[in-house]
Amino acid sequence: MPAGDIDRLILLLARLPGLGPRSARRAALQMIKRPETLMLPLAGALRQAAENIRTCNVCGNLDTRDPCAVCRAPDRDNALICVVEDVADLWAIERSGAFKGLYHVLGGTLSALDGRGPEQLNIGALIDRAESSTGAAVTEVILALSTTVDGQTTAHYIAERLVDSGVAVSRLAQGVPVGGELDYLDDGTLSAALKARRPA
Amino acid sequence: MPAGDIDRLILLLARLPGLGPRSARRAALQMIKRPETLMLPLAGALRQAAENIRTCNVCGNLDTRDPCAVCRAPDRDNALICVVEDVADLWAIERSGAFKGLYHVLGGTLSALDGRGPEQLNIGALIDRAESSTGAAVTEVILALSTTVDGQTTAHYIAERLVDSGVAVSRLAQGVPVGGELDYLDDGTLSAALKARRPA
Repeated sequence: MPAGDIDRLILLLARLPGLGPRSARRAALQMIKRPETLMLPLAGALRQAAENIRTCNVCGNLDTRDPCAVCRAPDRDNALICVVEDVADLWAIERSGAFKGLYHVLGGTLSALDGRGPEQLNIGALIDRAESSTGAAVTEVILALSTTVDGQTTAHYIAERLVDSGVAVSRLAQGVPVGGELDYLDDGTLSAALKARRPA
Repeated sequence: MPAGDIDRLILLLARLPGLGPRSARRAALQMIKRPETLMLPLAGALRQAAENIRTCNVCGNLDTRDPCAVCRAPDRDNALICVVEDVADLWAIERSGAFKGLYHVLGGTLSALDGRGPEQLNIGALIDRAESSTGAAVTEVILALSTTVDGQTTAHYIAERLVDSGVAVSRLAQGVPVGGELDYLDDGTLSAALKARRPA
């Protein structure tokens, strides 16, 4: 029978993705037992993040500075823009260390079902960045969008918008994941990997 | 590539039970996108809980007041003490609504492996409560401990300590969980349920 303050904490924790009521209770208990090492630092980190983190006006990334660290980095390739749906995807690509260009975060995909059109996404700014103009010329836009219907619709739409810009538009390769076992792959991935087969 | 503030938040979130690095990232992103409705309220709730919540000196429960709400409640049966390992167990029993006595939180079990002896647990205070003295006489101590080796060792130890006190000592019944399918039960539970069978 948690008391008022504990109850409120559990309710808020349970709203985090990945935490249900049971794990929220466990998390709350664990923190209450370690106020100095976990609860107060977390409270501080949350407040600090809420105050300091803003959306980059250039690419839509989240950072404590605007433009963000990626956009400000002097050693990145300004000619490449990688288009992602969400900041989480940007983080994932940065973790891979495989890309040294710039990003553009759309904030979602087009979706007929959810009634999300191009004006709800950060697409206009992408076209401006690609076609212009300000500073170094962009030579290639890489569409790193989900291989869902909505993701591919969005990729198709952006490719159309950029068709007259003279900028190369590419997509991520589809195929067998590294470490993936063929036996466990879905048919769509298998047939995409077969179609896109390369000389060994 | 999360920035400093975001990184710190993710690291702290990842230390909560039930959240790994991936779900901590998702939780952090979700909160950063909703600072007013989730991040700042959670920061406030954490700070408030850290400041207000204390351990009840009578039973070991966590509450904003000491003695806790259970110990202070006028309508509970002071003659019954239910002994639990952890506050989470106390909460679970309170949610069931099946118990109207008082509690005693041990703070763990005896454990030869982890080197936890009786003096590391809240056992002395339990013996004092059971044997004395102060106010209403305790008539029964219910040992609601885990049915693990350590839990049962602890139950046995406490029962021994209380053998001369004149207080009845009981344990939770073992058997088939309500809604449990026999097919999925482990052998230990099945044989305990058979041994403790009752006339239909």
